[in-house]
Amino acid sequence: MIKVGIVGGTGYTGVELLRLLSQHPEVRIHAITSRKEAGMPVSDMYPSLRGHVDLAFVTPDDAGLTECDVVFFATPHGVAMAQARELLAAGVKVIDLAADFRLKDTAVFEQWYGMAHTCPDLLEEAVYGLPELNRDAIRGARVIGNPGCYPTSVQLGFAPLLRHKLIDPTHLIANCASGVSGAGRKAEVHTLMAEASDNFKAYGVKGHRHGPEINQQLRAIAGDDSVNCLFVPHLLPLIRGIHSTLYARLNDAGQAADLQATFEAFYQGERFVDVLPAGSAPETRSVRASNTVRIAVHRPQPDTVMVLVVEDNLTKGASGQAVQCMNLMCGLDEHLGLTGVPVLP
Amino acid sequence: MIKVGIVGGTGYTGVELLRLLSQHPEVRIHAITSRKEAGMPVSDMYPSLRGHVDLAFVTPDDAGLTECDVVFFATPHGVAMAQARELLAAGVKVIDLAADFRLKDTAVFEQWYGMAHTCPDLLEEAVYGLPELNRDAIRGARVIGNPGCYPTSVQLGFAPLLRHKLIDPTHLIANCASGVSGAGRKAEVHTLMAEASDNFKAYGVKGHRHGPEINQQLRAIAGDDSVNCLFVPHLLPLIRGIHSTLYARLNDAGQAADLQATFEAFYQGERFVDVLPAGSAPETRSVRASNTVRIAVHRPQPDTVMVLVVEDNLTKGASGQAVQCMNLMCGLDEHLGLTGVPVLP
Amino acid sequence: MIKVGIVGGTGYTGVELLRLLSQHPEVRIHAITSRKEAGMPVSDMYPSLRGHVDLAFVTPDDAGLTECDVVFFATPHGVAMAQARELLAAGVKVIDLAADFRLKDTAVFEQWYGMAHTCPDLLEEAVYGLPELNRDAIRGARVIGNPGCYPTSVQLGFAPLLRHKLIDPTHLIANCASGVSGAGRKAEVHTLMAEASDNFKAYGVKGHRHGPEINQQLRAIAGDDSVNCLFVPHLLPLIRGIHSTLYARLNDAGQAADLQATFEAFYQGERFVDVLPAGSAPETRSVRASNTVRIAVHRPQPDTVMVLVVEDNLTKGASGQAVQCMNLMCGLDEHLGLTGVPVLP
Amino acid sequence: MIKVGIVGGTGYTGVELLRLLSQHPEVRIHAITSRKEAGMPVSDMYPSLRGHVDLAFVTPDDAGLTECDVVFFATPHGVAMAQARELLAAGVKVIDLAADFRLKDTAVFEQWYGMAHTCPDLLEEAVYGLPELNRDAIRGARVIGNPGCYPTSVQLGFAPLLRHKLIDPTHLIANCASGVSGAGRKAEVHTLMAEASDNFKAYGVKGHRHGPEINQQLRAIAGDDSVNCLFVPHLLPLIRGIHSTLYARLNDAGQAADLQATFEAFYQGERFVDVLPAGSAPETRSVRASNTVRIAVHRPQPDTVMVLVVEDNLTKGASGQAVQCMNLMCGLDEHLGLTGVPVLP
Repeated sequence: MIKVGIVGGTGYTGVELLRLLSQHPEVRIHAITSRKEAGMPVSDMYPSLRGHVDLAFVTPDDAGLTECDVVFFATPHGVAMAQARELLAAGVKVIDLAADFRLKDTAVFEQWYGMAHTCPDLLEEAVYGLPELNRDAIRGARVIGNPGCYPTSVQLGFAPLLRHKLIDPTHLIANCASGVSGAGRKAEVHTLMAEASDNFKAYGVKGHRHGPEINQQLRAIAGDDSVNCLFVPHLLPLIRGIHSTLYARLNDAGQAADLQATFEAFYQGERFVDVLPAGSAPETRSVRASNTVRIAVHRPQPDTVMVLVVEDNLTKGASGQAVQCMNLMCGLDEHLGLTGVPVLP
Repeated sequence: MIKVGIVGGTGYTGVELLRLLSQHPEVRIHAITSRKEAGMPVSDMYPSLRGHVDLAFVTPDDAGLTECDVVFFATPHGVAMAQARELLAAGVKVIDLAADFRLKDTAVFEQWYGMAHTCPDLLEEAVYGLPELNRDAIRGARVIGNPGCYPTSVQLGFAPLLRHKLIDPTHLIANCASGVSGAGRKAEVHTLMAEASDNFKAYGVKGHRHGPEINQQLRAIAGDDSVNCLFVPHLLPLIRGIHSTLYARLNDAGQAADLQATFEAFYQGERFVDVLPAGSAPETRSVRASNTVRIAVHRPQPDTVMVLVVEDNLTKGASGQAVQCMNLMCGLDEHLGLTGVPVLP
Repeated sequence: MIKVGIVGGTGYTGVELLRLLSQHPEVRIHAITSRKEAGMPVSDMYPSLRGHVDLAFVTPDDAGLTECDVVFFATPHGVAMAQARELLAAGVKVIDLAADFRLKDTAVFEQWYGMAHTCPDLLEEAVYGLPELNRDAIRGARVIGNPGCYPTSVQLGFAPLLRHKLIDPTHLIANCASGVSGAGRKAEVHTLMAEASDNFKAYGVKGHRHGPEINQQLRAIAGDDSVNCLFVPHLLPLIRGIHSTLYARLNDAGQAADLQATFEAFYQGERFVDVLPAGSAPETRSVRASNTVRIAVHRPQPDTVMVLVVEDNLTKGASGQAVQCMNLMCGLDEHLGLTGVPVLP
Repeated sequence: MIKVGIVGGTGYTGVELLRLLSQHPEVRIHAITSRKEAGMPVSDMYPSLRGHVDLAFVTPDDAGLTECDVVFFATPHGVAMAQARELLAAGVKVIDLAADFRLKDTAVFEQWYGMAHTCPDLLEEAVYGLPELNRDAIRGARVIGNPGCYPTSVQLGFAPLLRHKLIDPTHLIANCASGVSGAGRKAEVHTLMAEASDNFKAYGVKGHRHGPEINQQLRAIAGDDSVNCLFVPHLLPLIRGIHSTLYARLNDAGQAADLQATFEAFYQGERFVDVLPAGSAPETRSVRASNTVRIAVHRPQPDTVMVLVVEDNLTKGASGQAVQCMNLMCGLDEHLGLTGVPVLP
């Protein structure tokens, strides 16, 4: 049994981790921390966990995190990099669901997250936790920067095209939309139900933190620094789900290629990436509460490719992917605890 | 033209007042105050008002409220009672959309609202602003306690039965449900879209502030202190709308009465109360964004009456009713500015 | 392994059965029938099942249902009673999710369902499939009438009070609300999203089919034919979830009783009934996609009891309960395949 | 007073016409037809209209449509072209909210709408009813093809850029999303609330009827047949609202231009087109139930322009625009009956 700790479990990625880990056959949840809610049974905050999780929140000091095999940080940006060193020294593997270990360039991190990076050495060591594109490195990693929700869908959608050099990489468009759980469980006016339901809008139009992450990763995937993706997020009036509509111009090779076959071959054998039949349009509900990404590839014009991607932002876009990384790091079957069927309707 | 001021216009009753008053043919909005947002154009906060309201928020000190004919308080509880005296002295009529002038018993007020009542003299003078049940007093009033959203629907539903003494008044049940706009535009976790949408629950199960208001008023309507109503609110996953399902045991007179005819006669000529044909079930959307209440009366068992009532909690349940009171107080046609057709779908 | 057939799997109870059974460790789905969709892979209709269910719909004739251990009918009313006899003769156990085997009085069935009952002998043998109240009979049953969604919540809420004779049984009120999936996957105007979302209303106000079922069962639970429950359903703008607010007058014994302790003792050891701590208000989302019912009991007035019950209408209210019955009938652990954690948020 | 007839008023564009026209100071609704619902009071179908519209549906034969000044067709495609000739002969102006008079090329019409065009002569005469881009022609028209909902937003968003030749016209992208009311009030499974709520997807990915309309009109606006726009619609889980995210590559002139100033100048004086301040992101709710379109223009990359457009698909996207055309055709103030403030929240 893997002994697991969760730092900062009061948010949505925290409760999703608890949902997944409490059903994982090889995991024992050792401790879950919250300074603010220390002493409160987890199931008082999340009645959905009554009968499934018997722990109470504890302060980080009382959590005995160094006794864990793996610690997840489901915390605001900046927490993991402050605590990772001590855990690693104790032989604990660290998976950060925030952004501390995603951006390789500390200047970019500091620009977008408004804080200095205090752990550049670990950052260098940290592995970007997108298993389908980075599986071997994750297996051997001590520190994982778990990908952002939007970047997961954008990378998986563009990867076959970039790896096979089928598109003009300089003018990619990622027109994306996310449910409100992506904004977290923070008391803010703009995500009140009376503000965000029955409504739709773009946001972050002057730039969004996931933009640099997307471009860093797409460049790595392509091995080409000229990759440039315009990322435009929108806020959907639903709770769980990300939908990305990706556009690119096909080069000559792309126009000659069988795009459907390319995608199917690229994701052959991947249990969590489902390439839909030609002509499909994936729905966010088809992956609700599951770790699966569904992808459809279209050529609406001879020189244009459009890729449609759906994921559950809390599962494959956050906590499910983190568990997938844990499985790899711990030598378990990658799919363990992650095979739940999506909830539809 | 009536010169109107609004104190505290950043919440939902504030924006609803602005929507209604900016279309009112006999009103000029003189000032709208917000200490926190002073200087910000109203339409920056509410883009729906672009082209309709050109004012900016001002501090109360700069608002020149004493020059107004009528001032609305769309503020937290406690603000109106602190400022009403000065305005009245200047000849300004005051309409409070909060609870300061609703509960006649200051001890009850202090118990439920957690603050001392600083204006008991004005409280005595204040008139409860439910025109269909209190029209004459409103016409002559200087201070209006605008009814709570739930109490409006419950009173209008029970009034014909209580006035005609057709029911056992001691065991009334008001099983009510409201959209989330009733909770206001406050940053709170429990009304986040990710918490309140796709969900339904009772709340305030240990007692809700509208309980004493309902009982005070039902007793006044019946002229009977034995009236006792159990009020149970529920939170609906929608923005605007209150639905009340009312139950009572019919006494002998009630069992002999033609309830449909009783309701139709009681509300004959009332433009904002629509008694539906026998057998109907009103929908909240049928009154969306309008000042209308729709009521259906049923006798599901020989000795039981059930009344179904819908209203828009922000219009007839708050700002529309306040404008209706203003019209009466200022000698205008009661319906002026309030005849908009409900928005469906 | 239990060999299972599903008749009529294109509706919401069908896809929910597939979600649950495809994850059940002791079940193999042998066939799923649909005359209309014969030949279509199930996952073409429900992409959420891609990778989990590889079957295609078959016609009933090709389904080999008599080879099954258990056959579920997720069909319109009237289908199961036409086919049950042949299956039983072949030694197959039958679980009907429609109403064919719920109402013991065929005259009542015919009045409410508008068709003659063609199987009165099997009806007599059939067992009402609510395990918490009827476990032993279910274990030995060959034919199950799976309870209606509303009746499940109403019975579990009133049962402790009726069994202990703590309330006046003659004037019970069940004020209930259901999400739209309860109406099934039928093309109808009133459940279109543009009609049913952002809206709330009572329906079935002249009488609803679950009314006679509720009264039949409450009388059986109480052993008292004077039991009379007024059942009023409402339509919620959400997909999954039933919330029942139950009211009754406490008799002297009830006023003297510790209601919280009574409920806790009554459901002691029941894995799918969670009695919440005193003062709670259960949320529908706390049981989303799970087989759990959560109950809170309140005494808002000295002589009045209010019970709040939530369930997922597709799981405990339909397919989950059917699987629970199957487990009992087949001698399996009652909870097998039903321990998934609710999906929140 | 203008005497108005409505053919086929049972759908959403019909009820929206009734909402607007019943509040229009210069209109009298003469008749509203429905073969299927003849005899039913309109307010029985739409209780929101109780007290505002007293008409009952009549058959087309009994409607006396030739006595009207203007007749609106809120019908399925194909109805208006069958009846227009007779009405025009009687001196009645015709406004078709369906597609019969939108596409100038009958071959294209027949390809996309699956029926022969029976009125090519009137088609030639018909005027495309987008007042901001076609006002003079509308003033003199006898027959109006009222624009599609999506095409309205796409045209208004691209028009300033195309007219001023600031973009490469050959690779425009219109990534659009609409609420479910756009699909009409038809009983269909895919727009059931249990299917369409809590969900998001692209649709019409193999081609959508509004694609050829968009391209025909953008070419006319630009005076350039090389214009080519890829149109991708998505289905939003809300009732009213269209959001279009438009992308184009700026040419040298475009890169040198002040785009914000260009848009502001282009729509100067237009009451129903609101160009938002630089840096804005319009919300669909900011135009809910109003005839206003809000537009924001962005240059996220030096050579890329992004335009964000919101409209209410039933108002400016359908019935409001039709009334705007009627006003122009009848010599009334263009804004009459269309100045209602958007409903927010």
